Amino acid sequence: MKLVTVGSVAFDAIETPFGKTDKIVGGAGTFISLASSFFAKEQGLISVVGEDFPNETLTYLTSRGVNIEGVQIKKGEKTFFWSGKYHNDMNSRDTLVTELNVLGTFDPIVPEICQNADYLMLGNLSPQVQLSVINRMAKRPKLIAMDTMNFWMDIALDDLKETLKHIDVLIINDEEARQLSGVYSLRKAAGIIRAMGPAILIIKKGEHGALLFHEDNVFYAPALPLEEVFDPTGAGDTFAGGFMGYLAAAPKLDFDTMKRAIIAGSALASFCVEKFGTERLLEINHQDLQQRMQEFVSLSTFQLEA
Amino acid sequence: MKLVTVGSVAFDAIETPFGKTDKIVGGAGTFISLASSFFAKEQGLISVVGEDFPNETLTYLTSRGVNIEGVQIKKGEKTFFWSGKYHNDMNSRDTLVTELNVLGTFDPIVPEICQNADYLMLGNLSPQVQLSVINRMAKRPKLIAMDTMNFWMDIALDDLKETLKHIDVLIINDEEARQLSGVYSLRKAAGIIRAMGPAILIIKKGEHGALLFHEDNVFYAPALPLEEVFDPTGAGDTFAGGFMGYLAAAPKLDFDTMKRAIIAGSALASFCVEKFGTERLLEINHQDLQQRMQEFVSLSTFQLEA
Repeated sequence: MKLVTVGSVAFDAIETPFGKTDKIVGGAGTFISLASSFFAKEQGLISVVGEDFPNETLTYLTSRGVNIEGVQIKKGEKTFFWSGKYHNDMNSRDTLVTELNVLGTFDPIVPEICQNADYLMLGNLSPQVQLSVINRMAKRPKLIAMDTMNFWMDIALDDLKETLKHIDVLIINDEEARQLSGVYSLRKAAGIIRAMGPAILIIKKGEHGALLFHEDNVFYAPALPLEEVFDPTGAGDTFAGGFMGYLAAAPKLDFDTMKRAIIAGSALASFCVEKFGTERLLEINHQDLQQRMQEFVSLSTFQLEA
Repeated sequence: MKLVTVGSVAFDAIETPFGKTDKIVGGAGTFISLASSFFAKEQGLISVVGEDFPNETLTYLTSRGVNIEGVQIKKGEKTFFWSGKYHNDMNSRDTLVTELNVLGTFDPIVPEICQNADYLMLGNLSPQVQLSVINRMAKRPKLIAMDTMNFWMDIALDDLKETLKHIDVLIINDEEARQLSGVYSLRKAAGIIRAMGPAILIIKKGEHGALLFHEDNVFYAPALPLEEVFDPTGAGDTFAGGFMGYLAAAPKLDFDTMKRAIIAGSALASFCVEKFGTERLLEINHQDLQQRMQEFVSLSTFQLEA
């Protein structure tokens, strides 16, 4: 395996100003794996589901090249379920239901085929679970990236800080970067957070794009201004999956490659929000993605000399 | 005159988390003219001040190539005064004092030397005053740009819509674009606002950069992530002034030139916020500006192919 992802595989029920869904398949691990499968051909997913989870979704992931040996299926138990309702501006949401179910006792198993992966993506989970996956790899991956959220900063900051020491790339949003660093300026925040461990920091700013910090380099990736954001669920995970999938498939790992990887993630995220859940990601092909990435070029390219 | 600007010349008293000022020179017309003077060599300013306004400021503007025949000095009256206090995040502020003084009865005079300008910049003033300046030009300028704010949308929407029919470029922030269009999506808002008159729309997003819309083209200009925003006063006017000054000095007026003009405005605005009021704009030279514009290139340049 080139890339291994750990993250939730879940049911979501979503309400937006445009409509609502029954239980549909979601979860960070699902979005990340689907997104990275546009680039990475050999990847594994580590997760847990209940007996109620549809087998065809796991089969579908396999058909996209995702090895699911690491997805535990818990007999007699139920899959993680989240339900939320987005406000009119789509930038904030209320959580209506969180049923942890199998995720509450998730103890990740890293199958042998995944233990030597070069790239490891830790989806948003407790920092202890994230660290346990790092410890269960046979060798230290070339690049470990992780997502987290303010919830863990509130209740498990020490664990989070410990896990941060073991990773290379932290992917969080602007609000989380401000909370973790304790400062408002994102440039200052980047310095403070990178001193906690990750050499590379990506700050997601939703409709305002994303910032990449590495050494003295900063890259500002734009976001495509969209006619409509239909459902933002999974956009951040899709971004992270596109980023890691692109890197895992790239011939080298330098700042220019990371920039391209961010554009890949941004392009996939811009598709993700066009329909409910994973729906849009399942429709598009590689050519659609190439075209969308090209739109990012015309969106942000300028020359200082005429 | 190549470029003519109408806008307030004022006193400001500013409080930020970093300190506070006594009355210092400010006003949209001042920031716009200072910024545009980095590029435009022949420009005029149309404004009004009281007897209390320092003559050396007007002399200084003249030394930067700004013709001030159109700046009325009202004997026995006082200059417009604004005082405000910024909150900790610098994104919101409270107005403490607004004394309109001479601005309350401002009836712009367009001196003959300004009446044939190719470029006209209408700083934030009542839409009626802005329209009166257009009507007092001897010929229709090649390009008319204007700024406005939510205040005029609240109390003079019909006048504003009338003025919008006569201009080419509207420069507003994201919140104002949403209020004026009635929609949240900035891409949709751009279509609605451009149908009101201006062929070109620039949406300023502060620390998130700016969007330029023209025909089917969209350009996303990044903002430089700064260590610290010391005082945001005048940043929007500085942006507009840099934009118009760059255009007025450019050999042609196409989308690529407009993109460069936005980078010029963004670079100047990034200096403006580093100190109180106009202080930083008075310190920097053309080489500083060129270097800063170059930083925008490395900030946002990427190639899809390795």
